[in-house]
Amino acid sequence: MPAGLHPRTHLSKESIFSRMSRLAQQFGAVNLGQGFPSNPPPAFLLEAARRAIGVVDQYTPPIGLPRLREALAEDLQVAPENVVVTAGATEALHALAEALYGPGDEVVMFEPYFDVYIPQARLAGATPVLVPMRLEDRWQVDLSALEAAITPRTKAILLNSPYNPTGSIFSHEDLERIVALARQHDLWIVSDEVYDELYFEEAPTPLRQLAPERTFTVGSAGKRLEATGYRVGWIVTPPALAPLVAGMRQWSSFCSAAPLQAAVAEALPVARREGFYSALRSSYRSRRDLLARGLEGMGIQVFLPQGTYFLTAKFPGIEAETLVREARVAIIPGAAFYADHPAPEGLFRLAFCKKPDEIELALERLERYISVKR
Amino acid sequence: MPAGLHPRTHLSKESIFSRMSRLAQQFGAVNLGQGFPSNPPPAFLLEAARRAIGVVDQYTPPIGLPRLREALAEDLQVAPENVVVTAGATEALHALAEALYGPGDEVVMFEPYFDVYIPQARLAGATPVLVPMRLEDRWQVDLSALEAAITPRTKAILLNSPYNPTGSIFSHEDLERIVALARQHDLWIVSDEVYDELYFEEAPTPLRQLAPERTFTVGSAGKRLEATGYRVGWIVTPPALAPLVAGMRQWSSFCSAAPLQAAVAEALPVARREGFYSALRSSYRSRRDLLARGLEGMGIQVFLPQGTYFLTAKFPGIEAETLVREARVAIIPGAAFYADHPAPEGLFRLAFCKKPDEIELALERLERYISVKR
Repeated sequence: MPAGLHPRTHLSKESIFSRMSRLAQQFGAVNLGQGFPSNPPPAFLLEAARRAIGVVDQYTPPIGLPRLREALAEDLQVAPENVVVTAGATEALHALAEALYGPGDEVVMFEPYFDVYIPQARLAGATPVLVPMRLEDRWQVDLSALEAAITPRTKAILLNSPYNPTGSIFSHEDLERIVALARQHDLWIVSDEVYDELYFEEAPTPLRQLAPERTFTVGSAGKRLEATGYRVGWIVTPPALAPLVAGMRQWSSFCSAAPLQAAVAEALPVARREGFYSALRSSYRSRRDLLARGLEGMGIQVFLPQGTYFLTAKFPGIEAETLVREARVAIIPGAAFYADHPAPEGLFRLAFCKKPDEIELALERLERYISVKR
Repeated sequence: MPAGLHPRTHLSKESIFSRMSRLAQQFGAVNLGQGFPSNPPPAFLLEAARRAIGVVDQYTPPIGLPRLREALAEDLQVAPENVVVTAGATEALHALAEALYGPGDEVVMFEPYFDVYIPQARLAGATPVLVPMRLEDRWQVDLSALEAAITPRTKAILLNSPYNPTGSIFSHEDLERIVALARQHDLWIVSDEVYDELYFEEAPTPLRQLAPERTFTVGSAGKRLEATGYRVGWIVTPPALAPLVAGMRQWSSFCSAAPLQAAVAEALPVARREGFYSALRSSYRSRRDLLARGLEGMGIQVFLPQGTYFLTAKFPGIEAETLVREARVAIIPGAAFYADHPAPEGLFRLAFCKKPDEIELALERLERYISVKR
């Protein structure tokens, strides 16, 4: 065998989400780790997908199936020529990393960070610069730390709102200050908004509305329509940049799965018209409350999320891999979302995109485990 | 708007295949350009896909749905732990470029080259080194030119057999010599075998059989099962390397479309058992002959392919973009496959994965156009 693979394969470590899902399966654990829903996708998506099979089976343009770009434009209230379809939000973020930064460049992001951000920046040759969020009774952005992190090498600010793993949502005022910084320092903004329809109080402000000239919005049909395996994501670009971004993604997967693009195109207006997202929000709100109340009842400190289907909480003295083996509950350690700074002591992320009885079973198992440990 | 995108976005040019398909649609041309089949995928694949929708809808492991890895292992006679599923062969080649080479490295490939090879090597920071094929009455590999192209910086040899665009197949003896060179210089081999089941005479030798310790084989369900929009490809790796390669692809698309992975898993043994590939071969053989005889009847020199669904031919004095407008036939200019050396004068690639009546219509239109020009 030749001397070895390229050193960048040190980035190929199995993600904590894949690892915890594998351990959950191995130990028969309730999986509150990886963020895939236990509920099936809505029937209108499944039916549209079955209809598209046998009709839309060949390559689409890398920029996306025209009818899906139109449907996204209608749904997001943007121009169809600024929409690029990708193989999930993962490929959207990958294409943007390639399009926006390279060796010598820095990209500022917040910590805790979603796991793809750092390896994707490094694969593009850039340096991720992490600005820690403050956590006292709730998650808060530290705007002066953000400003201090910007250097002449900074090319972009990458943020996620509603925010995985914190479940927090950047306020309109915070976003305005971030936009002002981006304008002052001439930076791109990458706004990961895959949970754009998953909020429990006020709807989040789409960043592109505040800074259309510099914001790339990332979205996901998998997250919106509860079909994380369909790999249909999108980017809304500033004017005139969509072909350049599509031109990068053509070298990673060429195009997204054609029949599933057609299915999403058909499902988006139905989801909007039939109130699917508000039904989803109220279903997730009750599951969030079920999980939060259960944890609080055990004396665990919970940071109630404003959006996403994740909740952060502090479980002092717990170790995730021991927990999955001994309590048969999989959750993600906060440290998985920290690279440059220490994670808050005892922090974990729990996914509540699971059925109420799974959440209840997880709570029972946690309670038993914790009471024995005490 | 900020100063600009990263300079590597010069690689984001629309591919000639996308461009010619777009022009073909615009001018109502017969599209013998891009290599997507006019026939629908086989019913057993479509039925399996419809059954998987609503059952396999969430993330799979980045390395692939377990049952698909098993089905591929069975079909390809390899160990399942050496199989990685990807979002089409495009992502397979992208992940291998990232896993195998970087700045300062060289990768040797043949010219004419398939369009993704050069940008993918450049995105990984490596330098593609092109060894021209010889073309007299047929396409032949120049082994002494290959040997001369290898330097101490060479990390891998990338080849494609059955070969797009030439339609040629590397002989067993040629492959043995290439393996000997790879062993002598300690190189990886990336063997793009997406047309592995599409040959018209002898079956091609899978390179992994000659050099299992250093060969990465790339394959494609889209090509095998006539569903280029499904984006299910694969890599067979040397022992123990699959997790590292899967770890790279997790950052570009995370996983392939889940229900389509399940569908391909079900379809692969059916295709083998029911003789789908040999039926496909005989169907393509007759379409190849229809196109070749028609062109030869116009006095055009044809290089009869041994595999793939592409044929190369010399049309002196023809320009592809004029042809699509004036004759309403889309074909790909040979120059699209050449970067470092001039393309053979008047060379074009024609796809015959189209219906016989489309091929006949293209021939009529070409004949009329050429006779007027003469």
